[in-house]
Amino acid sequence: MKTISTENSHGGTQGVYVNRSDVCDCDMTFAVFLPPQAKGRKLPVLWYLSGLTCTHANVMEKGEYRRLAAELGIIIVCPDTSPRGDAVPDEPDNWQFGKGAGFYVDATEPPFAQNYRMYSYIVDELPKLIEAEFPVDMTRQGIFGHSMGGHGAITIALKNPERFGSCSAFAPISHPSVSGWSKPAFQKYLGSDEKNWRAYDACSLIEDGHRFPEFLVDQGTADSFLEDGLRPEELRQACETAGISLRLRMQEGYGHSYFFISTFMEDHLRWHARRLGE
Amino acid sequence: MKTISTENSHGGTQGVYVNRSDVCDCDMTFAVFLPPQAKGRKLPVLWYLSGLTCTHANVMEKGEYRRLAAELGIIIVCPDTSPRGDAVPDEPDNWQFGKGAGFYVDATEPPFAQNYRMYSYIVDELPKLIEAEFPVDMTRQGIFGHSMGGHGAITIALKNPERFGSCSAFAPISHPSVSGWSKPAFQKYLGSDEKNWRAYDACSLIEDGHRFPEFLVDQGTADSFLEDGLRPEELRQACETAGISLRLRMQEGYGHSYFFISTFMEDHLRWHARRLGE
Repeated sequence: MKTISTENSHGGTQGVYVNRSDVCDCDMTFAVFLPPQAKGRKLPVLWYLSGLTCTHANVMEKGEYRRLAAELGIIIVCPDTSPRGDAVPDEPDNWQFGKGAGFYVDATEPPFAQNYRMYSYIVDELPKLIEAEFPVDMTRQGIFGHSMGGHGAITIALKNPERFGSCSAFAPISHPSVSGWSKPAFQKYLGSDEKNWRAYDACSLIEDGHRFPEFLVDQGTADSFLEDGLRPEELRQACETAGISLRLRMQEGYGHSYFFISTFMEDHLRWHARRLGE
Repeated sequence: MKTISTENSHGGTQGVYVNRSDVCDCDMTFAVFLPPQAKGRKLPVLWYLSGLTCTHANVMEKGEYRRLAAELGIIIVCPDTSPRGDAVPDEPDNWQFGKGAGFYVDATEPPFAQNYRMYSYIVDELPKLIEAEFPVDMTRQGIFGHSMGGHGAITIALKNPERFGSCSAFAPISHPSVSGWSKPAFQKYLGSDEKNWRAYDACSLIEDGHRFPEFLVDQGTADSFLEDGLRPEELRQACETAGISLRLRMQEGYGHSYFFISTFMEDHLRWHARRLGE
């Protein structure tokens, strides 16, 4: 692991790091915020998964998480959203597929299967690195994210409920198998047999018996992706049918941007802190 | 004035606007945050001047001012740092001069005098527009900024002490007539007679008798521009000699970036709110 930069912020340290990912077969960059409490002891770790077009940097710059993470003593890890580099296949004119749009799946279809293995990167490879390099208490992990990253957080929590003590999302893609911006991506990453998509779709995972105790979801009512792309009502129905506790808050007049995320970041961090133990 | 965008954030509205500036002879973009209290009454207004290379957007995205401005009921105006557009003379490879580097002076030298009139834009033209378009109480104005914008805030406060009830700065350029990155710019904007630079130099203005009751200045000790570019000790000496109250806080290990600004934003907003009346 190589350190790109570290900066004091809110009493802690915001770092950016790069490592060679065997899983994604490329260099991967990620951000880690260490609150001041990290000098003395192991702390809970919260994984933030970003949305389409983002890198590790967007939420690091615009998410406004450091003040409260420093108060609560939580380490925040912000990975990238896809493999990167000249050797990685891409559709440069398509912001909903390829670089910046890994959808947190392990692709099975050539030529994407070689690099687009974001599920294994987030669930297996990066946690090992974070555990080896930072003072994290891996018995206290939470996961959250925005849009495509909210989809990633919810699906990863549903598939790994023993690992995560908390999960929340800002405007998550709730039913990617049917949304206009995720269906073509799933087809290219996972093939045309839609049965294979169910392992990466929150609504399908719940239908298929996966469970997580509770979710917090914030969704802006002025979000232009609400109806087709995000579909929070379908997540609500799936959770209701399955008896999963979903706190879905429709936030009047809010959009899809970091102005929305940063507004409700404090509520989410407190939600996670209460469940991970402060 | 044309609205570029408005977004709900922290209970208020973050807007971006553009207007034709007669003073700068070009279109000028600026950001205004209206806290929720603005729906019912006129509120204090705080002017934030940004540093080299920035537009209105940098502090809007990374400054973390909205949460507290919404709590305190303060309107925040973030102007651009220079004239813009194809017709504006520039040195594209020089980040310390031209576009993004207006230094809040009224240039006197051709070809820059036609557009680079940021002092008059900030002090005369933009306030008239803001007063006409937003619910601001112009009897309660404060001003602050970062680096080149801290220089702008302090010099504008010193020259207009009757207008501003409060002034603070993050890592201001304190003595631009002698700093490596501002001296060449002053020469090109204001000519080679250094007497004419004194009207835009905080230390010189104080030496020449200008006064402001008190300043809050935060400065990171790990700021790579500390010694040559910023020179807070020279501001301290000038203030001491003149009997101006300067609260200069050296912040251990902090750099020059928005990670530093956002950390101490809350302290600055509370400083202004106490002086402007909450």
